[in-house]
Amino acid sequence: MLTEVEVAEQLPVNLFEFEAIAAKRIPKQAFDYFSSGANDEITLRENRNAFERISLYPRMLRDVDRRDLCVTLLTGQRISMPIMIAPMAFQKMAHPDGELATIEAANNAETIMVLSTLSTCSIEEVAARAQGNLWFQLYVYRDKAITESLVKRAEVAGCKALVLTVDSPLLGRREQDVRNGFHLPAGLTCSNLVDSKLNAMPLHAGDSGLAAYIHALYDQSLTWKDVEWLKSITTMPILLKGILRADDAELAIKHGAAGIIVSNHGGRQLDTVPATISVLRKIADTVAGRVELYLDGGVRRGTDVLKALALGAKAVLLGRPVLWGLGQGGRAGVELALALLQSEFELAMILSGCATLSDITRDLVEQ
Amino acid sequence: MLTEVEVAEQLPVNLFEFEAIAAKRIPKQAFDYFSSGANDEITLRENRNAFERISLYPRMLRDVDRRDLCVTLLTGQRISMPIMIAPMAFQKMAHPDGELATIEAANNAETIMVLSTLSTCSIEEVAARAQGNLWFQLYVYRDKAITESLVKRAEVAGCKALVLTVDSPLLGRREQDVRNGFHLPAGLTCSNLVDSKLNAMPLHAGDSGLAAYIHALYDQSLTWKDVEWLKSITTMPILLKGILRADDAELAIKHGAAGIIVSNHGGRQLDTVPATISVLRKIADTVAGRVELYLDGGVRRGTDVLKALALGAKAVLLGRPVLWGLGQGGRAGVELALALLQSEFELAMILSGCATLSDITRDLVEQ
Amino acid sequence: MLTEVEVAEQLPVNLFEFEAIAAKRIPKQAFDYFSSGANDEITLRENRNAFERISLYPRMLRDVDRRDLCVTLLTGQRISMPIMIAPMAFQKMAHPDGELATIEAANNAETIMVLSTLSTCSIEEVAARAQGNLWFQLYVYRDKAITESLVKRAEVAGCKALVLTVDSPLLGRREQDVRNGFHLPAGLTCSNLVDSKLNAMPLHAGDSGLAAYIHALYDQSLTWKDVEWLKSITTMPILLKGILRADDAELAIKHGAAGIIVSNHGGRQLDTVPATISVLRKIADTVAGRVELYLDGGVRRGTDVLKALALGAKAVLLGRPVLWGLGQGGRAGVELALALLQSEFELAMILSGCATLSDITRDLVEQ
Amino acid sequence: MLTEVEVAEQLPVNLFEFEAIAAKRIPKQAFDYFSSGANDEITLRENRNAFERISLYPRMLRDVDRRDLCVTLLTGQRISMPIMIAPMAFQKMAHPDGELATIEAANNAETIMVLSTLSTCSIEEVAARAQGNLWFQLYVYRDKAITESLVKRAEVAGCKALVLTVDSPLLGRREQDVRNGFHLPAGLTCSNLVDSKLNAMPLHAGDSGLAAYIHALYDQSLTWKDVEWLKSITTMPILLKGILRADDAELAIKHGAAGIIVSNHGGRQLDTVPATISVLRKIADTVAGRVELYLDGGVRRGTDVLKALALGAKAVLLGRPVLWGLGQGGRAGVELALALLQSEFELAMILSGCATLSDITRDLVEQ
Repeated sequence: MLTEVEVAEQLPVNLFEFEAIAAKRIPKQAFDYFSSGANDEITLRENRNAFERISLYPRMLRDVDRRDLCVTLLTGQRISMPIMIAPMAFQKMAHPDGELATIEAANNAETIMVLSTLSTCSIEEVAARAQGNLWFQLYVYRDKAITESLVKRAEVAGCKALVLTVDSPLLGRREQDVRNGFHLPAGLTCSNLVDSKLNAMPLHAGDSGLAAYIHALYDQSLTWKDVEWLKSITTMPILLKGILRADDAELAIKHGAAGIIVSNHGGRQLDTVPATISVLRKIADTVAGRVELYLDGGVRRGTDVLKALALGAKAVLLGRPVLWGLGQGGRAGVELALALLQSEFELAMILSGCATLSDITRDLVEQ
Repeated sequence: MLTEVEVAEQLPVNLFEFEAIAAKRIPKQAFDYFSSGANDEITLRENRNAFERISLYPRMLRDVDRRDLCVTLLTGQRISMPIMIAPMAFQKMAHPDGELATIEAANNAETIMVLSTLSTCSIEEVAARAQGNLWFQLYVYRDKAITESLVKRAEVAGCKALVLTVDSPLLGRREQDVRNGFHLPAGLTCSNLVDSKLNAMPLHAGDSGLAAYIHALYDQSLTWKDVEWLKSITTMPILLKGILRADDAELAIKHGAAGIIVSNHGGRQLDTVPATISVLRKIADTVAGRVELYLDGGVRRGTDVLKALALGAKAVLLGRPVLWGLGQGGRAGVELALALLQSEFELAMILSGCATLSDITRDLVEQ
Repeated sequence: MLTEVEVAEQLPVNLFEFEAIAAKRIPKQAFDYFSSGANDEITLRENRNAFERISLYPRMLRDVDRRDLCVTLLTGQRISMPIMIAPMAFQKMAHPDGELATIEAANNAETIMVLSTLSTCSIEEVAARAQGNLWFQLYVYRDKAITESLVKRAEVAGCKALVLTVDSPLLGRREQDVRNGFHLPAGLTCSNLVDSKLNAMPLHAGDSGLAAYIHALYDQSLTWKDVEWLKSITTMPILLKGILRADDAELAIKHGAAGIIVSNHGGRQLDTVPATISVLRKIADTVAGRVELYLDGGVRRGTDVLKALALGAKAVLLGRPVLWGLGQGGRAGVELALALLQSEFELAMILSGCATLSDITRDLVEQ
Repeated sequence: MLTEVEVAEQLPVNLFEFEAIAAKRIPKQAFDYFSSGANDEITLRENRNAFERISLYPRMLRDVDRRDLCVTLLTGQRISMPIMIAPMAFQKMAHPDGELATIEAANNAETIMVLSTLSTCSIEEVAARAQGNLWFQLYVYRDKAITESLVKRAEVAGCKALVLTVDSPLLGRREQDVRNGFHLPAGLTCSNLVDSKLNAMPLHAGDSGLAAYIHALYDQSLTWKDVEWLKSITTMPILLKGILRADDAELAIKHGAAGIIVSNHGGRQLDTVPATISVLRKIADTVAGRVELYLDGGVRRGTDVLKALALGAKAVLLGRPVLWGLGQGGRAGVELALALLQSEFELAMILSGCATLSDITRDLVEQ
């Protein structure tokens, strides 16, 4: 683990450099798990390429002396910037402090962390450190009692929203995990599943242990009706994560979702699906403000955030770079990553002539 | 030859890895013959690139707990998945068991094998091991008696369909074969042509021996009328393999074809023809269900199968990876290749929200 | 420093070779500052790629025996070719003679030099060598008295036009400068700011010293009203440099700009903005001749100049290659760079069937 | 010089391999002159890339047993294939036999050779070996008497057509020639200009000697009226070589051209002009059969010839590969190159379902 001083000594200048540094600090099996995508990683690369292909058309000579990056979310929460922390499993594989370091960095940055069902610290542990800025990401188990228990615990612990992942009836085939026979390192556990005794991930010859775990335990019969069931058992607003089609967005609204996260699971589920930024526009046009839209997938640059907002997102969720920061320096590393992206985003706003988020209009990417 | 154990020890995780392993096991001249395409191999590469460019738009929250991958073909045959084995010549060059290993793997996978006219085991030998799952691919010889004899033998042996290759009045120029002076290795023969004494492929200076063989023996005057003639001499339904234009598909129907295989011969005939997946949609719109459509060319991923079906194919035919499996481990290797692709295809269905083949609709690739 | 003889001995044959030679002669920190772009340098590369993607459709059999490359500008100045010298800071970092060498090369080439606010020779020093061919580029300081003083000094010194940079409320993030901790080398100073004591650029840990300087001193509240204010304090015509949108061009005209320089600051401000040549056509259609249009960004070939003129530019401004020439051989090196581009441009005109600039019509790039 | 046996021993299998072999046999200065293009060689590469991007849509089941590749030209000449030899200067730089070897290879292949004004054998020498299959390419000198003399000599010698190059008022900037200070090797001369004493190409410091020669001697005031003048002094039909625009094609017809060669001078004149195959369709639509269309530029594959004919060309002209064949084996090498391309073209016809040239219709490249 790095001291803050050591972190400062090798300060990366952009989020890409975070990954290079993390690759040296995080054990290979864990780094492979975090970094890889499904199959040929076409979607993984396309998440970046699509952002890079979008041109920005900045407006000049607008007063940008004072900026306001704050945004108020459907939950009523006001965060310091339209950048949140995406749900990611097994954070102790990146750093011993795991999700606890991440929530403290979120506190410091005044933003929201979405906690994964597959966290290595329990909902209660993380919520104890949170400052009203925790959401909970849900995987649905075949055993509905387990699912219901997870939802109730999240609500009791003070989570402000429930993020239902809809793109993972099974795990995408991440070939590096198959080659590595990926499994949780000794000493780590799925902390939220200890009571239900589903916290262990047995070794599985010739496959990813996580793939086998999900195959055995997740509910492959999940449908839109289950969204209504979840609504019936919680007061938390429900967001659906993993929507890539406008007709699915319409169904999400119909079945009571409060928000939609346009996501392809970081390119880790079905390979060759489009980049999220490529489908955002059409979904935003369909949703037309009826529920809130979020996006994750490939966000690495301040200009990416600007583009996502110009195309209809309320905020973006940052994924892997948080893990790279965590691996590099624990809480301080995550803070560094968040601060760097915030700073880039603010500069992108300034150079585009935007003083507030409402200045970020679609004409910035369409001329 | 590998034991099944040895195969398992170096289990490839995708079909691309099969090729790399096979390149070390199959003699160079044979590997070159199997792997290369015509001229600059532009079509060979495009067969892959075109699949990779097509985006999938998966539907979420659909019950995919129970899947059915079975499909019933024009022949009335019901197979376990919409993946069949394409006709490929000279399989003993990949493995001593040759076509006999392939038919047994097809039996095990409950799918169809299309036997090449240029097989190194005879129709009768292969048919003796088949379980009603053999089709016969036909090249038409100038000597109509030979052609008629091949058709009759296939019918008598129990082949369920006749696949007429229409794209090969001459052999495409495969430069690596020219450089190698490609010819059948000692001990191998065109087993179906022994009676007609056309089983040998004499060495031909500065050319591929196969190109010279075909130049001398195949009928370059073949026309649509010959399709009608073939219909008159067999009760087997006739499929035309090698169609790339909608107007040719229309002619195929007019002249009595029962099915069409959209194919560019694996990029081995006329270079710079489009990828098969690129022309499938237009041909499917023209055919409009009047006859069955199949596709081969570049299928390597489960998502490729999904895309082909979404664009109108009833099933796809797998080519070279079968040879790489054969070369790697005989029957067990072919089974491995088929099982891997089936598994990938099933996962692609699940992650796209498809429980049955009828759920695979065109909107999965068009939004 | 090279003698003219030495320059001749290793005569580069195109402007790209100038850069390679300069990379060996200019100290790394300075070379990095001059050569790099913002962030991923996507716009930097796109400035070149966009020129290369545009096809020319030359006209044949037109009398091109006598050519006239001269052009008369809004200022009434007549220059020998539609190629001027873009404003660039800190030219003494490239060569001890700095901006004095550049103005003398401009004199020799009978073209215009735009002097940067951040020059290492003062307005008065450079103007003393000029031959009525100096324009002044302005950055607006928060302290309006300083800004006003700069404008007045430029006017008194005989500058013929004022080029207001509108794309730089803050400095773009040029990562190589951040890594280098870029600052002015010992002995160099912002010569125009000596009186206002803003001539030094203090070292700034973990950042570009110039970025910090601009953050502290430039006016981030600059708006269109300030254009009117500038008009009220000077008789020089005002050009706005950094416009990338047609609606901003319309605003520029409305607020009294005499000319527009379509520019993305050489890819150094907001990354992923389009190449200037890609937006020129639309801006030219909007402006429709009401004010003069110029372009900089990626001009390296005679055909680039031809394309810019065909798409509506009156002239182009050449940037980095001037610095490479300066670094290579002082005044002689700059002359060489200008002469090479002029020669290429003249040949491009001849081979396109253009004897005069008015022959350069849009159909040369649109068929 | 190679014997035919030696040529056979290292038989290249495609025209690209001819270049690799020639690069070892032809002196570097000459090879650079022959192989290079103008400036960044964007057009040079695009000539190939554009052919490779065009897809072929072959027709199946058409009788291709007997093929006829012959074509009758505007001159009434009937040649064995729609492939001719493009005009190329200084052929003795490739092989001591120079243009004499080329005409004999043309005789053998029953096709036409276009002799360059800048040949190293004289019109009379080459015509003496020709069999009614020689055309003459003309550069127009400032001194009209010289030009007129060249035309008269060509007519008297029996040339059947005059090919006026219209894209070369000056030489394109071929940077490799500039670096090499390109000049004719000792012992070689511009044989057609001996009488007019313009046969020498003096060394020119820091430039291509040929560029300087052309700058001094060619007529930069050439216009459409000169086409009419040429018509008035010869009975040979006049073809214009170097047209890239449909409006210029219209002018060519108006001023009495009998044919048009769509050409970009092999990418050697104005860089970034489009590939010839990219502009052929539009020009063919404009010309609509009123005069004959030819094409050169990047033809290396039999499928290229097929594509050019499908898009409207009567025949193509082959350039550099003729020189590579010449360099490799004199007359035998040229014959080899022509035979290889003819063979590839015939195979492309067969595999596309074309028995005669009239079967090559536009639908082969447009679906």
